[in-house]
Amino acid sequence: MGSSYQRKQNKAISNEIVWHDSAVTYTDRIALKQQKPVVLWFTGLSGSGKSTVANAVEMKLLQLGKHSYLLDGDNVRHGLNQDLGFSDTDRAENIRRIGEVAKLFVDSGSIVLTAFISPFISDRKQVRELVEDGQFLEVFVDTPLEICEQRDPKGLYKKARSGEIKHFTGIDSEYQAPVSAEIHLTTEGKSIDECAEHVIYTLEYLGYFDIEGEGA
Amino acid sequence: MGSSYQRKQNKAISNEIVWHDSAVTYTDRIALKQQKPVVLWFTGLSGSGKSTVANAVEMKLLQLGKHSYLLDGDNVRHGLNQDLGFSDTDRAENIRRIGEVAKLFVDSGSIVLTAFISPFISDRKQVRELVEDGQFLEVFVDTPLEICEQRDPKGLYKKARSGEIKHFTGIDSEYQAPVSAEIHLTTEGKSIDECAEHVIYTLEYLGYFDIEGEGA
Repeated sequence: MGSSYQRKQNKAISNEIVWHDSAVTYTDRIALKQQKPVVLWFTGLSGSGKSTVANAVEMKLLQLGKHSYLLDGDNVRHGLNQDLGFSDTDRAENIRRIGEVAKLFVDSGSIVLTAFISPFISDRKQVRELVEDGQFLEVFVDTPLEICEQRDPKGLYKKARSGEIKHFTGIDSEYQAPVSAEIHLTTEGKSIDECAEHVIYTLEYLGYFDIEGEGA
Repeated sequence: MGSSYQRKQNKAISNEIVWHDSAVTYTDRIALKQQKPVVLWFTGLSGSGKSTVANAVEMKLLQLGKHSYLLDGDNVRHGLNQDLGFSDTDRAENIRRIGEVAKLFVDSGSIVLTAFISPFISDRKQVRELVEDGQFLEVFVDTPLEICEQRDPKGLYKKARSGEIKHFTGIDSEYQAPVSAEIHLTTEGKSIDECAEHVIYTLEYLGYFDIEGEGA
């Protein structure tokens, strides 16, 4: 996994003094952080538990001394993507930008968690293709619609059923479940801790906490 | 400096099991990274040396064990902002998005360096207001137009003079110099190292390498 971006080297910018560019590389950053950067892309219905599990995973990463950041509706929709609505075009642009920001965080050496419904296979595939092989793991939070609707933590399903909200994923807009997510979580009857532990176990198993040159 | 984002606590998402959200906080992240996050916003004419100095500063930060990331044309214009052109509206949106991404990196605990001409005071002010007090330092790379044009590393001034490029900052588009940049760099007759050292010295002087409870 090399740096995603090429920077110019040895550029003369003065007649008097030759300035040599040197740049911190991806390799430098992962050596400092002692981890393999990756996007953990949580996908699932509204109320499935994406944010909750992602937060719990981030807490465990912190306890392991790992450097991570969580992108979710709270810090993206009100900031970077505040100009976007909920049309098909805007939803796709929302995911595209989140993917590009996730790529920047990965390039910076971080483990990035994202928690967005991201209902369409094509959008998720587009993000996967932005980063290098092995830098994207899809985490399918597979909670059945009936359970999500029963939980309905924000009262959104109720509004969708009454027609107050249109194009709501699972009700009158499609959710395309992943067919080959790297991590498949069923949350029914499980604790947050069990779900988060499964993600951490998988990261460890896949070698994300070892950097090159270090143990198995 | 508290976390920029509020996350919900104690949200029940199941009828069977009460799931308690817990989230990694800004305080947790700066404790892990042992630094005060900040945006170092480099501004100056094309060819002034913004990217070169920013890269050199980042290298020194790495040597100090600090966690940083550089946003510049290479990793932003071809990624997140690839849909934007060079109209006034698109230029403003370009800076707005960079500001929002810088805010996310600061929230993640990083020192963020940005190297964009960012010619307008209003755009830079808008970014400053996005983050908390003390999280934004403007670095004015004050190289006179004549020197930048003499250097012309990408041949852009030549094209601007011949009319091949329109709205080029310094030629037929205004550069609004900062009136109260926290760091003012003159690059003429100085080495990259001297410029970068001045930035590092200032960061140290202003206490960015001490976290609360530690040293002076």
